[in-house]
Amino acid sequence: MSTANDDASVEERLAGVSFNADGLVAVIVQQFDTHEVLMLGWADAEALRCTLTTGRAVYWSRSRQEYWRKGDTSGNIQVVHEARLDCDGDAVLLKVDQTGPACHTGTRTCFDAVDLHATPGAA
Amino acid sequence: MSTANDDASVEERLAGVSFNADGLVAVIVQQFDTHEVLMLGWADAEALRCTLTTGRAVYWSRSRQEYWRKGDTSGNIQVVHEARLDCDGDAVLLKVDQTGPACHTGTRTCFDAVDLHATPGAA
Repeated sequence: MSTANDDASVEERLAGVSFNADGLVAVIVQQFDTHEVLMLGWADAEALRCTLTTGRAVYWSRSRQEYWRKGDTSGNIQVVHEARLDCDGDAVLLKVDQTGPACHTGTRTCFDAVDLHATPGAA
Repeated sequence: MSTANDDASVEERLAGVSFNADGLVAVIVQQFDTHEVLMLGWADAEALRCTLTTGRAVYWSRSRQEYWRKGDTSGNIQVVHEARLDCDGDAVLLKVDQTGPACHTGTRTCFDAVDLHATPGAA
């Protein structure tokens, strides 16, 4: 009997993803309950396949040119709750339960450090 | 007197952005109050400059190879509330107030249509 994440259904869904010239798709990672945006990662088909079939977030490191399963070295794992594909197939929204900080700098999210903008009129 | 979004301070902050080989940075767009992730856009330095100085979200369309100020044709504008840069400078989190649907298909977000994944164990 087929389940939602058996090989055939995962492959069918992966076929709808538009990977870029480097074979990658952008993955927006959001904490499933607080809705904080934690980080932006990149995945190739194999990383996304692992993410969908194992329930642990796996990415492709563009700087190190290798796979990394989030939390394997830091312990700050991401357990997958939901994965959505955008309207043109080239971005994934991955909703996870993040243990500890998502950022390698130790902050909860990768967006905590640098404010690019102040609210207009607030200055 | 300097304000938070005068030309000099905007240029200083733009200098911290790591644009990719195509001169673009990924922009994750989030509704500021409900925290819905609305879409993923792309911006070059000029689009980001316009976004930060005018308070309306401006992107670079990779498919049309032109700037687009969100909502100019649809009326579904994005008013900027906050902009954050990630830890390695190559992703922006833009918090906006989105009028109407963010997606050109008419759905609220670009991630409403395609479920890539069911919660493990739910099948």
